[in-house]
This record gives sequence, C-alpha cells and structure tokens, in this order.
Amino acid sequence: MRLSRYYLPVLRETPADAQIASHRMMLRAGMIRQEGAGIYAWLPLGFRVLKKIEQIVREEQDRAGAVEMLMPTIQQAELWRESGRYDAYGKEMLRIVDRHDREMLFGPTNEEMITEIFRAGVRSYKDLPKLLYHIQWKFRDEVRPRFGVMRGREFLMKDTYSFDIDEESARANYNRMFVAYLRTFARMGLKAIPMRADTGPIGGDLSHEFIILADTGESAVFCDKRLVEMPTPKKDIDFDGDLQPVVDQFTSHYAATDEMHDDTAFAKDVAEENRIAARGIEVGHIFFFGTKYSEPMKAYVAGPDGKDIPVQMGSYGVGVSRLAGGIIEAFHDDDGCKWPMAVAPYHVGLVNLKAGDEKTDKLCEELYRSLTAAGVEVLYDDTASRPGEKFARMDLIGLPYQVVIGPRGLENGAAEVKRRSDGAREEIALDKVADHIAAAVKDALRYD
Amino acid sequence: MRLSRYYLPVLRETPADAQIASHRMMLRAGMIRQEGAGIYAWLPLGFRVLKKIEQIVREEQDRAGAVEMLMPTIQQAELWRESGRYDAYGKEMLRIVDRHDREMLFGPTNEEMITEIFRAGVRSYKDLPKLLYHIQWKFRDEVRPRFGVMRGREFLMKDTYSFDIDEESARANYNRMFVAYLRTFARMGLKAIPMRADTGPIGGDLSHEFIILADTGESAVFCDKRLVEMPTPKKDIDFDGDLQPVVDQFTSHYAATDEMHDDTAFAKDVAEENRIAARGIEVGHIFFFGTKYSEPMKAYVAGPDGKDIPVQMGSYGVGVSRLAGGIIEAFHDDDGCKWPMAVAPYHVGLVNLKAGDEKTDKLCEELYRSLTAAGVEVLYDDTASRPGEKFARMDLIGLPYQVVIGPRGLENGAAEVKRRSDGAREEIALDKVADHIAAAVKDALRYD
Repeated sequence: MRLSRYYLPVLRETPADAQIASHRMMLRAGMIRQEGAGIYAWLPLGFRVLKKIEQIVREEQDRAGAVEMLMPTIQQAELWRESGRYDAYGKEMLRIVDRHDREMLFGPTNEEMITEIFRAGVRSYKDLPKLLYHIQWKFRDEVRPRFGVMRGREFLMKDTYSFDIDEESARANYNRMFVAYLRTFARMGLKAIPMRADTGPIGGDLSHEFIILADTGESAVFCDKRLVEMPTPKKDIDFDGDLQPVVDQFTSHYAATDEMHDDTAFAKDVAEENRIAARGIEVGHIFFFGTKYSEPMKAYVAGPDGKDIPVQMGSYGVGVSRLAGGIIEAFHDDDGCKWPMAVAPYHVGLVNLKAGDEKTDKLCEELYRSLTAAGVEVLYDDTASRPGEKFARMDLIGLPYQVVIGPRGLENGAAEVKRRSDGAREEIALDKVADHIAAAVKDALRYD
Repeated sequence: MRLSRYYLPVLRETPADAQIASHRMMLRAGMIRQEGAGIYAWLPLGFRVLKKIEQIVREEQDRAGAVEMLMPTIQQAELWRESGRYDAYGKEMLRIVDRHDREMLFGPTNEEMITEIFRAGVRSYKDLPKLLYHIQWKFRDEVRPRFGVMRGREFLMKDTYSFDIDEESARANYNRMFVAYLRTFARMGLKAIPMRADTGPIGGDLSHEFIILADTGESAVFCDKRLVEMPTPKKDIDFDGDLQPVVDQFTSHYAATDEMHDDTAFAKDVAEENRIAARGIEVGHIFFFGTKYSEPMKAYVAGPDGKDIPVQMGSYGVGVSRLAGGIIEAFHDDDGCKWPMAVAPYHVGLVNLKAGDEKTDKLCEELYRSLTAAGVEVLYDDTASRPGEKFARMDLIGLPYQVVIGPRGLENGAAEVKRRSDGAREEIALDKVADHIAAAVKDALRYD
C-alpha cells in the first residue's frame, strides 16, 4: 500500500483523555477514531490489526472443531424473558423500541439466541455434541467507558457455544476451547494464563479467565511463574483426543484473579521465587453452565431411552477488539507500537527518504514490487514528508521492519533495515534486501 | 466438513410466509433462521455463502484502489443533525437512547460519519483523492420487511466513499466503482446491468443502479439486450487509466428502472428484437453527490491557491446479504439452489450411501482427505440418513458437484458424479474421481 493513497491520520499530540498506552497509541497512530463514548471507527491501519486478530481466532476455532455462523446484533426482548435475564441484566443492556413498539435490544451476548437456534434444529442425543461460534459486534452500555477499545461499549467478540448430552462430553468441549485459547493467544505473541474465575452474570460453576500480564491491567492477579513458562500445545494436537492432561497441566499451579485470590493458599502452594503478583488483562473467558439456559428455554433432546433431557451447555468468549489494545499494552515503547509479526498491520515499512528523486523512487518501486510479489505486506511511505517525520511515524505505527532508502545508502549500494522490536539496525546490500526481509517475515510468521 | 458435526437444520415443509424462491430455499436449506421481523441468523451453510460474497466484493474493491476500514453500527444523532438528515430520515431510522439519555441510532448508511472522519484527517488537496470503504451491518426499520434477506431490516452492506478536489477527479472515482461493480457481480455468475437511477434520500445528480434480471425482481426494468451480452472488463484493466470508454460503452444503450423509464424513448432507441422488459433486483447503487454533505458538514480542504473548498463526494453501495438471495433467485430449480462455484458454500457434496459399512466408509474417508488436500471444499454426508433423504438434501443445498459412493458403484470401481447446474451424471473410476473433481472445481473458480 502506498501511503500517499492511504488514510493514516497520525496525531502529533497525545489526546488528553487517553489514560493508558494502547488508547493513546491507537488514537495517535491513526488506528481508531472515537465516534461516541466507547464507540470507535477502525481506520484502515487499525482495521488490518483487527482482521488479523479475528482470523487467528477463527483458524484456531476451526482447528478445534467449532463451526462458524453469524447471529444478528439486534435481538428480541422476548427471548431474554424466557431465560429470565431481560430484567436481571440491568442498565448495561441497550434497549431499543422499533417503529411498531416492539421491544428489542442490541445483543450484549448470545446464550439465549443460540439456545433458541439449537432447540429449533436438534432433537436427538445422536446429533450431539455441537460446537458453534460466531464473531460479531456486541454492545454493553457501560456507565463509564474508558481505556479505548479495551473497555468500549460497541466491541467485537468471538463467542462459542457447546451443546452436550452429559457433563463428561461437555467437559471435552470445554477442554477443546481451553486448549484452543492457549494456542490463539500464543499465536498473537501473548502468554495468556488460565485462572479460575467468578462466573458473574453468565452463571455456571466451572469457569476460567485467560489473562495476559501487563502493568496497565485492569485487575490484580496472582500466579505461579511456572505457568508462564509452560509450552503451548502444538498445532498437531488431536482435538478429538483426551485433552484433560493438558488442562490439568495448565491448572496444576496457583493462578487466581483478585476476586478469587486466597493469600494463605498462595503463600503455602507457591515457592517464594515463583510468586507473581501483577496486573492482568482478561482476553478470554470460558464457562460451563450446564442447564442454566436449556432448562428454562426448553432446549431438550431425546436421550438414548427416548426421554427428553435438557442439554448441557457452555460458552466461550474472546475479546477480539479488546485484544488490539491488549497486544499494544504488551508490546510498545515510548515511541510507539511494536507489533508481533502475526498481527502487524503491515510486515514492513518502506521509507523513501527522497520521494521525487528519480533514483530512490525507482529503487523503492522495485523493492515494493519484489517484496509484494514475495507475499510481504508493505506500507510504502512515498510521501513528501521530511525524514524525521517519516521515522517518527514508522516508529509510532510499529511495523516489525523498516527498510530505509536514501541517497547516502544508494551511494553505498545498501539499504538500512531496522527491526522495531529491539531497534537493531543493519546495512543490507540492495540486491539482497528483498530476499532478506521476505525470509525474516516468513520465519516470524511460522508457528506450530 | 462432516455433516454429522455440522449444524444443517433442513426443513421438510415450505414455510408459509416465504413468498419468493430464495426466501423459501434459504429457510428450507438451513441457511438462515428468522430471529425477528426482517432479522436473520446466518446458520453455518448460509454464513459461508455470505463470507464468499463479501470476499469477492472486498477483492474487487481492493483491486480498484479502495482502502478498507470499519465504522461502528451505532452513531450519534448529533452527526445527522449536522447534515440535516436526522429529522428528514423518518421512521426507517432505528433511534436509540442510551443510559445517559444520549440520542443515538443504528446506522442505516454512513455518509455523515465518513465525512466527519475525513474532515478530521485531511486538510489539503494534495492528500486527495481518497477512496474508503467498509463492510458493516446496517439497520433500516422497514415498515413491512419481507422476501427474507432480500429486504431485511438488519443487513450487510459494502459502502465506499470517494473524496475529490473537483468533479473531473470525482468522475474518475465514480468510474472506478462502476467498473469494479461490473466485475464484482460477474465473478458471482451474475450479469448486472447499470441503469440510470433516481438518487432518493442519498441525493446528488449522477447515479446508476446495478440490476440483475430475475422473474421475482422487485421492480420492472427495461433495457437493450446488447447490454446483457457485453463482455465484463478483465482483471488486468488499469484502474488508474481512463475508464470513461468502458463506462460509455455500458451506458450507450437504453436501460432504465421503472421510475426512470420512458416508453417513447425505449420504442425509438431500441430495435424490437433487442427490447427486454423484465423484472430486476437491485444489487448495487452508485452516487455522485458533490458537496451535499461536505458543505453543511464543513469537510473543506485547502486548494492549490490556499483557499478552503468543500470536497466532491460520492458513495457506492453493494447489498452483500441481499446478494445471497439474489443469486438464488438467478440460480435454482424446484429441487433447490444451484450455486455458482465462486459463492457455493462447499464445492462438493460427498455422499456415503451406506455410512457404517467398512468399505464405503474407508473409500469416502480417502476421497474426503484427497479432495480436501487438493483445496476442494467438501461437505461429507457421513450421516445415517436414508439415500433418498441424502439426495434430496444435496439437491436442496445445491453444491455444484455431488460425488456418490455406494455399494453398487464400489462393485464397478466407480463413483457417480452429478453436476447440479444441469443434472448431468457421469460414472468415474474411483482412482480418478478426486483429480477429476479437483480439476473441474479449479477450472470453475478461474476468472479473469
């Protein structure tokens, strides 16, 4: 993409009301624009990050055997009366009345609707288990939205729902999502630690939050260092096999959010050198809640003996838009973002230090073409901005590599390549630079 | 995908309130489920069609040089007061009040918001032209929603917005979208005819609707047969070159919707054998409206002489969710859908006539694996349903090819391959069938 054709409204000044790094940087780097309290437009650069996060979430859901679909944003109030949550949900639910005075709402979550969809199509235990997900915009009318996309009102979420004949089978689906989540966050460069969690308004008695550690996290968390060091399950793991040993391993050490924390147990169970007391950001939450919705909403199937029984259900959420902020919280410095390759808006920023000069233009065009042909995503700064402005902008938007072409390098027959993660710089011969970068990008995108 | 794990709630009976083929078939084939008046959940099979349509739209927008972003569904009433449309829009606008009594709405379109985003980031004519698009759910509170996804209240739309310094440059962007639309619909197997159209509530004085011909179309249309036969511009067309000759060619013959139709001109300009009077479905609509929004909303840029001038704008819509219905209207028979390969939910249905039998199971598994490995999308019917039910279901969901494996074929060492579009059947040797199908699918997906 040529920057001259792009829409990248970088801000010089730090927005006054942005309290945390990710909010500041997303606004400054022209990734988002506020369109109301807790409501954001995703400008082109931010949109690319959002799409990459979404795609990783999708791939790992598909790998785990979940089937994608899409529920609408607007729901009927009637459905929520069936479960009893319409009155219970409170002011966070955005209630709407249409032109015919029908009561509707902007879905804050989808347990009711998926239960209705399930009960309409599945009648027998033979059709179980089912594991369905969607990725859709939701709305929670937070009284004080803040922290940018980390706690917005309109937000993008992946939610999966499981339907099983008994608890044992439901547990297998719970474990599938547990392992899928470990892999999902790891592919984004994050170490998410599963912690026993309060089930809140979703209900149920088995639940884990997936928490990434970050200084600006919203809540205090406590865990055993050994959890942070545990290797992530590989992509060849069999999601139809027994995943309990993996889940056991990741729940074998102390890990708790503030509300579930027990100081005595922490001191007793974790050696002092392994105790981590830090701040955390919730990026995923999984629940098993049995018949909480299937019972009142009559989502029954015929069992082996012909008798109707309510299905066992669970739900599994990932905060897709929130992750864009969470990843910045984990990877940035004072100058801007430092995107992991897998979620970077572009892999490489190509900086033409003297746009308009025949030689640098020609060389940049060639590099732009050969990198693009090699599958590298390039943002080519072909603008007339001053060099200082170009460097600052590239650091701010934080693409993993910068390739700088200027008259001085041309004389030496070399480009300067900067790695954003650690600032390392190299001079690379002009005829080698495309291959060098393409190999580095390919290597960074490899995962297992 | 194994059907036993899928969620495909096929209906035996035709839903009483579905008046047109696409609505009936989408409900019967388990593609959608109604969740309110004019509000649908996209079940797994329908979701795949929706995603493929969306992806073709996206690819052709990108090819034409448009840049993707994403605006939120919820908008502030304030913004619409600036343009004067808040009061003018009427009851089709879904108005919402939040917990702090702020007036909001579910966006029916995005001219106001994109103008606000543009004016915040672009100050000089040097940063023009800009061409931005998004694909997002919108809501229009139709008084009588009907025809399923063809006229729903919550619907998915691609909308592009152009910003230019003068009319000539704006015309170039208009032409880019005109050509992109011809290509977009052609890739879905549709022949969409550009027709001069009324601009309605969007405004402006230059506008074309893109109309596909179908017996169940919502309005009468009149056009010259030569338009239907015109070849679509190829993918190597230069979107930065002069597209006016292409646009001239496609607007050189008579074509008008009911509201713009002139019987005398039609009789005079079109030879009798070329006159088409038919029904049409609108699948796209492009507008140039100049300064209609930029003037009241003060989207000014500094011109070459330093003076502020309002930008020239256009907007360009494609009905993404509506197209799913439109394609069925164009391709179906009494038994069900007949998907063009490019938008088919799966390329091939693999039918195991004797699931549970060791030999057919083994052979089907092998075929499933080899087809999948060749990049073919397979829906494998591994269920215990009766053969008659399997055949009817496959015809209903309308995948382009069916590969049938049964004991009789096994004896002959052959599979039966059925092409859904024309019902043609072939016996193909078992060791050849995967290559045969993979080649046919690849061939059908090729486009230029």
